[in-house]
Amino acid sequence: MTDFITQVRHQQTDFIIRSIMDVDFYKLTMAYFIQKNYAGTDVKFQLINRDKTIPIAKIIPEQALREQLDHVRTLKFRRTDLYYLRGMDVYGKNMFDEEFMTFLANLQLTDYDLKKNGDQYELTFQGPWEVVTFWETIALAIISELYYRELMKGMHGTEIDIMYARATDKLYNKLVTIRDNAPGAKITDFGQRRRHSFLWQQHAVEMAKEVLGDQFVGTSNTWLAFNQDLVPIGTNAHELPMVVTALADTDDAKQQAQYDVLWQWGDLYGEGLRIVLPDTYGSSQFYNRMPLKLAEEVANNWKGQRQDSGVPEKETAMFMRWLRIAGRLSDEQISKRFSIFSDGLDVDPIVDLWNEFDGKIITPFGWGTKLTNDFEDCLPTPNPLFRPFSLVCKVVEANGQAAVKLSNNFGKATGPESEIKRYRKIFGVEGIGDQEVIV
Amino acid sequence: MTDFITQVRHQQTDFIIRSIMDVDFYKLTMAYFIQKNYAGTDVKFQLINRDKTIPIAKIIPEQALREQLDHVRTLKFRRTDLYYLRGMDVYGKNMFDEEFMTFLANLQLTDYDLKKNGDQYELTFQGPWEVVTFWETIALAIISELYYRELMKGMHGTEIDIMYARATDKLYNKLVTIRDNAPGAKITDFGQRRRHSFLWQQHAVEMAKEVLGDQFVGTSNTWLAFNQDLVPIGTNAHELPMVVTALADTDDAKQQAQYDVLWQWGDLYGEGLRIVLPDTYGSSQFYNRMPLKLAEEVANNWKGQRQDSGVPEKETAMFMRWLRIAGRLSDEQISKRFSIFSDGLDVDPIVDLWNEFDGKIITPFGWGTKLTNDFEDCLPTPNPLFRPFSLVCKVVEANGQAAVKLSNNFGKATGPESEIKRYRKIFGVEGIGDQEVIV
Repeated sequence: MTDFITQVRHQQTDFIIRSIMDVDFYKLTMAYFIQKNYAGTDVKFQLINRDKTIPIAKIIPEQALREQLDHVRTLKFRRTDLYYLRGMDVYGKNMFDEEFMTFLANLQLTDYDLKKNGDQYELTFQGPWEVVTFWETIALAIISELYYRELMKGMHGTEIDIMYARATDKLYNKLVTIRDNAPGAKITDFGQRRRHSFLWQQHAVEMAKEVLGDQFVGTSNTWLAFNQDLVPIGTNAHELPMVVTALADTDDAKQQAQYDVLWQWGDLYGEGLRIVLPDTYGSSQFYNRMPLKLAEEVANNWKGQRQDSGVPEKETAMFMRWLRIAGRLSDEQISKRFSIFSDGLDVDPIVDLWNEFDGKIITPFGWGTKLTNDFEDCLPTPNPLFRPFSLVCKVVEANGQAAVKLSNNFGKATGPESEIKRYRKIFGVEGIGDQEVIV
Repeated sequence: MTDFITQVRHQQTDFIIRSIMDVDFYKLTMAYFIQKNYAGTDVKFQLINRDKTIPIAKIIPEQALREQLDHVRTLKFRRTDLYYLRGMDVYGKNMFDEEFMTFLANLQLTDYDLKKNGDQYELTFQGPWEVVTFWETIALAIISELYYRELMKGMHGTEIDIMYARATDKLYNKLVTIRDNAPGAKITDFGQRRRHSFLWQQHAVEMAKEVLGDQFVGTSNTWLAFNQDLVPIGTNAHELPMVVTALADTDDAKQQAQYDVLWQWGDLYGEGLRIVLPDTYGSSQFYNRMPLKLAEEVANNWKGQRQDSGVPEKETAMFMRWLRIAGRLSDEQISKRFSIFSDGLDVDPIVDLWNEFDGKIITPFGWGTKLTNDFEDCLPTPNPLFRPFSLVCKVVEANGQAAVKLSNNFGKATGPESEIKRYRKIFGVEGIGDQEVIV
């Protein structure tokens, strides 16, 4: 009621992750898939900072990081959260069964292993896949926010005010540009993992709702979907084929594993969640070598693909060509399929891609880091360290086997060099290129 | 981010009802019942101030009341609210069907009719029962809060600070008394309708959670259940037998109507919601004249009763006796039944009743006005008008027929005099007494 009460009562650490719902929704859809198909698989996830010019461990104190990670382990899904998840019907009624609801009710995140190595952290999470998977976007959001909090400690109040005022104006102009130049583009927030902060993501999403109106269709952040009354958006990620491929023994079995995942996913979920992520080992080989029966199934009964690496125009054109050939779809039919863009988007690509594909294929935009963490040219006193950087948290082992990702982009490959080499032999390098990885 | 932004951005009316979820949960369970059994019945609800010494219309400006009522008509259940209601499983999975979920998604409250009559308002709501029913606790909460807001306009800041400090301390002491003297008593907030304010109810519920811990089990306010992660509590109210009895033509049919409601309720809901409210036309006649088959069903397969008028000890003893005779239940079996107290409770009755019945029958307490609106002796400058008063919003007509309530208490009867007389002939006056009605 009065400031002095608020002051004393809330004198606790300002936790970044305040709810276990503050996690990307695809962690839920994937955890359900894992529980049904691969429960108990022992996996290791690892923090990978692709940008070595960012000295994370020099900037974030280890104790602060531990406090935030420890706090997450105290969080539980609340009764209200569980009601919400059970009652969600955007992907069909009762999309999660009661076995999974019970799993969520009891979920506690696994412990972590944290070591300093020079100016970087070695941070890993190991345990049953269906539990460990939740750490990914949570760990990333923690490190991202802690990083900027530390940098801001060197700024005085007015500098921070100016920075936020400029970033707010910048974001507003971006949203207006989209509204005016890509009026049919459907925008989704995908920016939890590399956000400037929890509050800034909320601010960005609120602004996007107000400026974009019906064009702003949802968010990948389950907590924000719940609190901002938006559709929770998310399907699957590279970790599914990465683990399933790692578990496969022979080269042939590894090549097939990416397709096994599709059959299993299609069995579990209806059309609303049937989105192909083709680029784990290169999209070209993925589509071209897909077994005929699966190709017919995917082309005809799946909603579309998510384009997460490679040149977006090229990848989308390839997908459309594939739909025409493998699924014998007409232009009219293809125009109802989805190609979701989610790779380092910003305003210009959104406007260009929408204008290029409007009417030809539906192109929802999963706008991430540049929606929730764009402070470029906003600091009164420039700081080259104050920028988003390419931080990921990837599965690196499954039942002791190395997990590998190749991507459509040489720079985005992850895994031990020797294994990458082996995988390149299995999957080839057709269509793989060199794009700069910014975020 | 800064006070001047907040100040300008939120320069709108401070609405009392901010969400359509800020309504007693029994309005939802009853609306579902109505949709399934009596959809479209034309009813009229009316505001009834039983305390004529409170000049509501002199204190609350008509325009302020209209603004608040009009605002409620703009409110809709949000996507998140609907997910929550669909996913609730405390009363069984999928307790509401999709027809009802669609009804809720489209729900807009009906218009109202408001006139000044001396120093009282004549406020009525007319339309389809399943819609109009939602007005009851919403209209009451609006009038209650507007009333105290107006009274507080005559107080200066320090007076208000002192008042809230004393009321906070008073509530704290009450909660500690319950914790220490009735350690097994299960307490539920039933105080939405006559609360001091929305924020004060929230404050009281937060304090009750902290002080009572597991003893505090839920709230009748759906919005608070959602936001405070509590069990939403509520079953049915007098309006069900009142309307169904009004619709019955003959005296015999009227006498039977109170039992028809029970059969229909038991068909719709499982045990968790099977709570008898026996006192619409007197509890004594209700139990004593209940048809044998229904009596066996209720005694054996219903959870218990809610005691809302008459002397609580006497009414509960009667119910236990009835269970023993009509249902042939053993003491052991009776000790697992519920007698929920909800009639003008405060700390002393809660402690006394719990001690009296502990181990004999389960006695949850639906604590209302004295939980969410007790400022007695808290004002530095006493104001005799600053107190809770007996305001209700009752159904008065159904398809043009007068709706009547008799209660166990002569003072709580509602309806036209001639109809009350007729109903007294049908139902008798056995067991009906004279207790003072405070809230």
